[in-house]
Amino acid sequence: MPGRSKRKPPEPAAPKSVPQAVVNRLSYYLRELQHLLRQGVQTISSSQLGQRLGFTDAQVRKDLAYFGQFGYPGIGYRCHELAEAIRRILGTDQQWPVALVGVGHLGQALLGYKGFSQQGFVFEAAFDVDPELIGRQLAGIRVYHLDRLPQIVQSHKIRLGIIAVPASAAQAVADRLVESGIQGILNFAPVTITVPPQVSLVGVDLAMELEQLSFSVLHRQRESR
Amino acid sequence: MPGRSKRKPPEPAAPKSVPQAVVNRLSYYLRELQHLLRQGVQTISSSQLGQRLGFTDAQVRKDLAYFGQFGYPGIGYRCHELAEAIRRILGTDQQWPVALVGVGHLGQALLGYKGFSQQGFVFEAAFDVDPELIGRQLAGIRVYHLDRLPQIVQSHKIRLGIIAVPASAAQAVADRLVESGIQGILNFAPVTITVPPQVSLVGVDLAMELEQLSFSVLHRQRESR
Repeated sequence: MPGRSKRKPPEPAAPKSVPQAVVNRLSYYLRELQHLLRQGVQTISSSQLGQRLGFTDAQVRKDLAYFGQFGYPGIGYRCHELAEAIRRILGTDQQWPVALVGVGHLGQALLGYKGFSQQGFVFEAAFDVDPELIGRQLAGIRVYHLDRLPQIVQSHKIRLGIIAVPASAAQAVADRLVESGIQGILNFAPVTITVPPQVSLVGVDLAMELEQLSFSVLHRQRESR
Repeated sequence: MPGRSKRKPPEPAAPKSVPQAVVNRLSYYLRELQHLLRQGVQTISSSQLGQRLGFTDAQVRKDLAYFGQFGYPGIGYRCHELAEAIRRILGTDQQWPVALVGVGHLGQALLGYKGFSQQGFVFEAAFDVDPELIGRQLAGIRVYHLDRLPQIVQSHKIRLGIIAVPASAAQAVADRLVESGIQGILNFAPVTITVPPQVSLVGVDLAMELEQLSFSVLHRQRESR
């Protein structure tokens, strides 16, 4: 491509306090860029990228400006370069070994979920207390007794833990993950858990997604009245 | 309570364009208010409510101002009244009959998920094409063949559909849900689907939650260096 710059892509910064909503939108930008790349699209403007996601071009530029300067005058963003930059910012340019705790229906669904490994999240081990599950391989992942958590976390260098146990057991499992030296926890149990400040925590409340949907349905109906 | 106003709680407005992030925060406010009510807390200030969720008091007031005036001078918010108002805004003061399509591990996990019915989302029927599943009751919900979708959606007045099928089948299932007259779709399949403008669509990408977590872990590490 004529005029293509040879300079290295800028190293993304890690600013002290990026609003959660911005980090969330980074995931959407990344998904859209990955989609464009599969279609063979090489460059995109901030307004085109915004339009595909329902954001303004100013929003796109402001979000990315938290992390550096990614656009080229007269070209826009190079899709591959911006996708790689966002992956570095989100940390999905590296592999994250993950432990799953709780191998019921939800846990088994998560073990088989294709979207995780695509973004660098790799299940290394699963844990349960049910004797019928322990020792089995599910979706290629070995199920261990929960008592072996500290040992396996250390030997497999596991950094993230996913909690998919009933609400009543979630805090106790979180405590064991923390004791095992895990750095971050994704909690699917429909209950609030607490962790020490050095451990990151993201709670997934599936009903919230349905609430966004019911709001949208109601709002649409009122608009069309 | 002395000085308690007898006036009816204000009817929440439905403004034309509320940012998605605001609707998302409403769910968090509602969860926190429901938690406070279970603890017997009757009133709370915007700064207390914000503090519990990591938002500023200005953010709380600005978000709620989209929908009306909910605070009382010198009192703050009445937890029960504000929770009810948010439920009316989100639509979870009514029951939403829901159809599930896809009764694999994820589908079965969703059928058993306690958080849905707590917020008014009630599974009426499940659908699959696997002859071994059809006719069974799972978590109390009958599984029908997908071909019966239009009939059951109408007879059970089902308004929302949840897609929990493999990515390759998701668009075809979405089309059938739309044809059946469903008003909104929650898509768990890790693929982008399209629906006509009169149907609401929310996509759940579970890897995005893990990306928020990896970002948080990386960011925390850099901060503590």
